[in-house]
Amino acid sequence: MAAMSASTPATDARTRLARAALDAFAVRGFHGTTTRDISTAAGMSPAALYVHHRSKEELLHELARVGHERVLAMVRESVATSDDPVEQLARLVEDFVRDHAVVHTGARVINYELAALSEEHLVEILAIRHQIDLVVRGVVDRGVSSGAFRTPDPHMTSLAILSLGIDVARWFRDEGRWSPDEVAAHYRLLALRMVGVPDH
Amino acid sequence: MAAMSASTPATDARTRLARAALDAFAVRGFHGTTTRDISTAAGMSPAALYVHHRSKEELLHELARVGHERVLAMVRESVATSDDPVEQLARLVEDFVRDHAVVHTGARVINYELAALSEEHLVEILAIRHQIDLVVRGVVDRGVSSGAFRTPDPHMTSLAILSLGIDVARWFRDEGRWSPDEVAAHYRLLALRMVGVPDH
Repeated sequence: MAAMSASTPATDARTRLARAALDAFAVRGFHGTTTRDISTAAGMSPAALYVHHRSKEELLHELARVGHERVLAMVRESVATSDDPVEQLARLVEDFVRDHAVVHTGARVINYELAALSEEHLVEILAIRHQIDLVVRGVVDRGVSSGAFRTPDPHMTSLAILSLGIDVARWFRDEGRWSPDEVAAHYRLLALRMVGVPDH
Repeated sequence: MAAMSASTPATDARTRLARAALDAFAVRGFHGTTTRDISTAAGMSPAALYVHHRSKEELLHELARVGHERVLAMVRESVATSDDPVEQLARLVEDFVRDHAVVHTGARVINYELAALSEEHLVEILAIRHQIDLVVRGVVDRGVSSGAFRTPDPHMTSLAILSLGIDVARWFRDEGRWSPDEVAAHYRLLALRMVGVPDH
């Protein structure tokens, strides 16, 4: 019931605009997209867009905020499933990689168009990204402390594990040879090897 | 002398245009950049641009072709330095990663704007990328055959190693905490671990 009552014409319009903006940014980039492109794709007049968003930058900001908050909540949940750094990292990488394969178009836009955000919005998004980094670094640091992980540079290793997952959004194709689950399972193994955990 | 005689006014103009196009694509994306943006940044009239390139797509194609051919030659040279797959992979990753850190702006444009190429040009660039993939897969496959590498999926592991290097171009900052050499050295270790080589 809550879900139904939340679906007002206004939220429908916002959702349609956000989806249209994401698709347009993915194809033509933020700077190559006009607000008219977005409103037309959403089946609205350009004036109707401004009822919901003051600019296309606000649309990008909303996409980036929602997307990053979702990923932050996801990685926190991955880590909360265990007390063992090995299990935590395995689960985090699987979840993060599967997600970046499944929502690859959205993840690409969010990761590659950050520079188009206003200074204020960029600072906000970078703060969420920093929280995501800290979750990964926390797991890696605890694994090093417990002796489960061996790495000469825990910070760069954490960054590389996240980087590997983010780049899945660039190369993954829905019609490609591997499913999101297959990539997630193999990347789990790769990440554990990167922190020096022997294969089971 | 050869280098000097190659520097005619025409090649100077082409070089200026290519550099201006790369910078503009990096800031505003391919679709957000006009030919006027490029010619202005190169200190030329829009008409002068068309003497050298029929369109901005041709400029992107030239940047992508030159960039990819350079990387293909580089990884072939990395592999040619040894007969040992461990040494070959170590050298290839170091060279590839250092390069993507040093020329990160160019590598980002080339990797993220591929979809803006014409079908014919895209096919050409994808063929060069395939050659680069084959170099990496060749090293990984030989390492698996010789028993030096252990991986349940050599193909996905090769892709992940390249992916890790490509994404350096996204996150690397000239003013950041690590030099290109430091990233290259750490990624060499990570890549060897990814193929199951014990640390030295």
